[in-house]
Amino acid sequence: MLTDSLAAQLYAEICRIPLIDSHSHINPLQAASRSLDDILGYHYYTELAHSAGMSKAPLAAHVDPRERVRIIIEYMDRFDNTAQYGWFVDIARTFLGFTGERITPADATGLCETAERLMAQPDWEEQVLRKSNIEKVFLTNDFDDPLEGFDTNRYVPCLRTDDLVFHLDKPEVRQRLAKATNVEVHSWRDVQTAVTKLFEHFTRKGARACAVSLPPNFTPTAAARWEGTTDPTVRSQAIFWLLADHCRAFKLPFDLMIGVNRRVYANGVYQGQDLFDQRTSLIQYAELFNSFPDVIFPISVLTSVQNQELASYSWIFPNVITHGHWWYSNIPVYVERDTRARLQAVPKTKQIGYYSDMYKLEFGLPKFNMYRRILAGVLADDFVRAGSHSETQALELARLLLRDNSRRIFGV
Amino acid sequence: MLTDSLAAQLYAEICRIPLIDSHSHINPLQAASRSLDDILGYHYYTELAHSAGMSKAPLAAHVDPRERVRIIIEYMDRFDNTAQYGWFVDIARTFLGFTGERITPADATGLCETAERLMAQPDWEEQVLRKSNIEKVFLTNDFDDPLEGFDTNRYVPCLRTDDLVFHLDKPEVRQRLAKATNVEVHSWRDVQTAVTKLFEHFTRKGARACAVSLPPNFTPTAAARWEGTTDPTVRSQAIFWLLADHCRAFKLPFDLMIGVNRRVYANGVYQGQDLFDQRTSLIQYAELFNSFPDVIFPISVLTSVQNQELASYSWIFPNVITHGHWWYSNIPVYVERDTRARLQAVPKTKQIGYYSDMYKLEFGLPKFNMYRRILAGVLADDFVRAGSHSETQALELARLLLRDNSRRIFGV
Amino acid sequence: MLTDSLAAQLYAEICRIPLIDSHSHINPLQAASRSLDDILGYHYYTELAHSAGMSKAPLAAHVDPRERVRIIIEYMDRFDNTAQYGWFVDIARTFLGFTGERITPADATGLCETAERLMAQPDWEEQVLRKSNIEKVFLTNDFDDPLEGFDTNRYVPCLRTDDLVFHLDKPEVRQRLAKATNVEVHSWRDVQTAVTKLFEHFTRKGARACAVSLPPNFTPTAAARWEGTTDPTVRSQAIFWLLADHCRAFKLPFDLMIGVNRRVYANGVYQGQDLFDQRTSLIQYAELFNSFPDVIFPISVLTSVQNQELASYSWIFPNVITHGHWWYSNIPVYVERDTRARLQAVPKTKQIGYYSDMYKLEFGLPKFNMYRRILAGVLADDFVRAGSHSETQALELARLLLRDNSRRIFGV
Repeated sequence: MLTDSLAAQLYAEICRIPLIDSHSHINPLQAASRSLDDILGYHYYTELAHSAGMSKAPLAAHVDPRERVRIIIEYMDRFDNTAQYGWFVDIARTFLGFTGERITPADATGLCETAERLMAQPDWEEQVLRKSNIEKVFLTNDFDDPLEGFDTNRYVPCLRTDDLVFHLDKPEVRQRLAKATNVEVHSWRDVQTAVTKLFEHFTRKGARACAVSLPPNFTPTAAARWEGTTDPTVRSQAIFWLLADHCRAFKLPFDLMIGVNRRVYANGVYQGQDLFDQRTSLIQYAELFNSFPDVIFPISVLTSVQNQELASYSWIFPNVITHGHWWYSNIPVYVERDTRARLQAVPKTKQIGYYSDMYKLEFGLPKFNMYRRILAGVLADDFVRAGSHSETQALELARLLLRDNSRRIFGV
Repeated sequence: MLTDSLAAQLYAEICRIPLIDSHSHINPLQAASRSLDDILGYHYYTELAHSAGMSKAPLAAHVDPRERVRIIIEYMDRFDNTAQYGWFVDIARTFLGFTGERITPADATGLCETAERLMAQPDWEEQVLRKSNIEKVFLTNDFDDPLEGFDTNRYVPCLRTDDLVFHLDKPEVRQRLAKATNVEVHSWRDVQTAVTKLFEHFTRKGARACAVSLPPNFTPTAAARWEGTTDPTVRSQAIFWLLADHCRAFKLPFDLMIGVNRRVYANGVYQGQDLFDQRTSLIQYAELFNSFPDVIFPISVLTSVQNQELASYSWIFPNVITHGHWWYSNIPVYVERDTRARLQAVPKTKQIGYYSDMYKLEFGLPKFNMYRRILAGVLADDFVRAGSHSETQALELARLLLRDNSRRIFGV
Repeated sequence: MLTDSLAAQLYAEICRIPLIDSHSHINPLQAASRSLDDILGYHYYTELAHSAGMSKAPLAAHVDPRERVRIIIEYMDRFDNTAQYGWFVDIARTFLGFTGERITPADATGLCETAERLMAQPDWEEQVLRKSNIEKVFLTNDFDDPLEGFDTNRYVPCLRTDDLVFHLDKPEVRQRLAKATNVEVHSWRDVQTAVTKLFEHFTRKGARACAVSLPPNFTPTAAARWEGTTDPTVRSQAIFWLLADHCRAFKLPFDLMIGVNRRVYANGVYQGQDLFDQRTSLIQYAELFNSFPDVIFPISVLTSVQNQELASYSWIFPNVITHGHWWYSNIPVYVERDTRARLQAVPKTKQIGYYSDMYKLEFGLPKFNMYRRILAGVLADDFVRAGSHSETQALELARLLLRDNSRRIFGV
């Protein structure tokens, strides 16, 4: 797939670096897929099929999974140009022995059967991780996750706090919090106590990061007071600040995923409803970055437009780290450009190259492959051929981006 | 002009696809040029010459057209680096037998004579369309256009509604509307009646789209009420929503051209005064896209900055289509990048690759050539060489972008 | 460093064009460095070392300069991927005889000694200028600079007005102004008188431009009145407008450097605290550009995101000039893209390709080298190979960008 021989050579070497995947949505109790329906249930496929004309009916729970798979594949010839389709072909070839050129509805039943047979093997999860060369996978854990029953050395817990920051006024969230912490939230003091308990629980269980996704207009500030207001924005700001302070106290990096508007397409498929407003700026986080010099902030931005801000803020602020290529920016043209900008402007020790954002383990390989190909091309053109780096030095750079920086920053 | 042999080969094949040009400003009663003055009267040349130092005097109506042509060509050696100059050379070579390297004032008289001689041929229009391989050209018709005297199968009517949305409070617009519809607008009911009559007239005459250009801060909303306010923004919103509702009822796609500020350079040449504010977002259209799931919205954005939003919104919303490369984004560096992003992220059936935006037929060829060269390069690099597509499949993709998607979406 | 032979050939020829450096921070009384500490005192190194983990302690005045150099070099292996590190290696090789691959702390003492020995030569400044092929360097002069003691033909004065626009209400600025002009500012009339005296002084001394850097939200307007308000924004607007009017009267181009927020990282190193908000638009300057058609505005934008606006505004407004690649946009990936857009869309006579922004003369060479390599690549790909320009014509284009346009626009 890489016609440039230097890039192909670098790619082959880069693939030998064991990966630390610093952000995913893996369920560690069922990390790998059990069927093709698990694979094609990824929102990228359901939303692209829906966008291309498929109704939401095949996605209903009662529909036979194989029938659902067949229908989604049927619609694929409307989006077989996309990067996401490419991931699926990569999975079919690497994990399911597919040898054809394109995947058509005629392949559906065969692929479903192969998938069920192979994925039923007791060591399937191990096989996938081994083939993908992934060593550790960070999770996205609800605050009330017991974090039991899995190897937290392989699947690293991460406290996801969207519910706390944006939904704490909802009764069901308060109930979940009460159940998790034995604290009923009536006052700001209660919020503080509950959050401290959560951090104690998570760090005891090996959590290595706190994380939150934020809308484009969010602006953290120390001035926000939770008590004495019912303004949801101010309450969100207050809790956010409290979390940052706990990250400081518990020495956890605080992953910020900046820029998503939820439910923009209200009738979209599950997880296929969120979009963004490009008009956002990291200047909104200046007070935060200044106030917590000891907290490391790995930052994901949703748009390539904002990548110049990210590269520049990371170039200036010691505690700002560039973190992966998120969601709508995770297509080759933007990954390449953003990678080049970061490599030209940000200290190499402050960059985490990529994470999978995956829900099922099988996606680690095709997504990291996409990134590794791009990285190999950038290293070949901008560093080795430009004369500034030997191949060995270029590979050391890749190793920082794919492994060593994550190990140091998250302490794993 | 393409040094890559695979791209050159794809380009040659792409040029054989008969084009549907989904947006132009052609006057179907006088579609082709009659002189070089018609060619160089295109605002790209007058505004670039003016920007480079030419006064507006040569553009006055009383100036001898040949003298005007000579002066504009004289200034061309100040902007012969631009893509627009390249179009002119392409026209001179393809249509006027020009064989030199660069066009200088010494060529002016000869070119004028050749142009007048050739363009006087009765079949000139046919020749131009044949050489350009253009099958259909969409128009931009004022709401009071009688749509008579031309083949609406070749020149497809399109109801342009800027006057209705933004200028209906002007007496002259109301008079034109009254004349066209026999409705004097006093109440919202009158507006509704008049608009319905326009849609009836246009669809009876074969119109295939409704279109409007919108300023960066425009935000459509169902909440806007025309009656009871004199706020021009609210009135514009109300009429816009009414038009969207008529597009639904009359099953017309609604072309939105988003982002232009009119008369920013107030003393500029005719049509050379408009610019933009990059701070705009498609989030402003979320309510619209959600409210009219049955209306197809082919969207043009004015900046490449906003292209990531367009690609993402089209990836999620079934009714959002990426539409061409408009105006200030219609230069190779942006066309290439935006094309790559769309091809990597948006279902291939939801992309209309390019339109000419031309005022005279001769511009179809150089503008589409520019796009076809870029498309050929992107297909060669990102699809054929990357191993995901055969050459045949890549050409099928090109055919969707240049022809088949327009046919399906606009029903032509 | 350029593997493409056509680009390498163009680069070699481009390097022969004597440069006009249209913006720098050179102190003409001590233009060249006297030690490696002068080189590494450039904020790019101190801020990158600090961002990568170095405390500010080594930057204190009492620290031994050689020790400071050693420490900064020690941190370089955390940012030796950056363009800025590349400049330093280029300086070490070109001016200090360094022949190694990478610069390590083991090289520090040797390099310091070599630097001190070579830089002590009486003709060092001449050597640097000759090797760099720089003919003229524009300065950034405080309004109270006496402009004495140097050759204003080589070091061209430029009136920098940030203090006047944004800090005139500070007592120390008023004192400096009073000392420079013999005018104590009490009324608007006083401000006018003082500013006129400054322009008289500067133009008498050979100043060729007025310049100011502006925050992202700044919007000039003729409506602002200095008297009768204490609003600092309105006062800034009023003074800015007065300066534009003086540029008109004194026929000076007004360099606008748009988009910087000062002291965003308040605890950063000296000159390493400023960042930006990408949400800014040139539409904010429409009134200005329209009001002063006779004033030429060379515009620098801080983000590549805004470059499309710059290219478009320069394509339309006769008095808007594209000016260099400023600060956070001065890394190869952005320089290349922005250069391509400008060359495809803006009259070639309206582009000033690059300036050094340097504080010490030694930086002219590596920075212009970076630009010249990029320019050579763009000319090779987009012009010569694309068939629109011969090599000679491409080099004429380069000459405009690097020399002739600056000469004409600034009258030097």
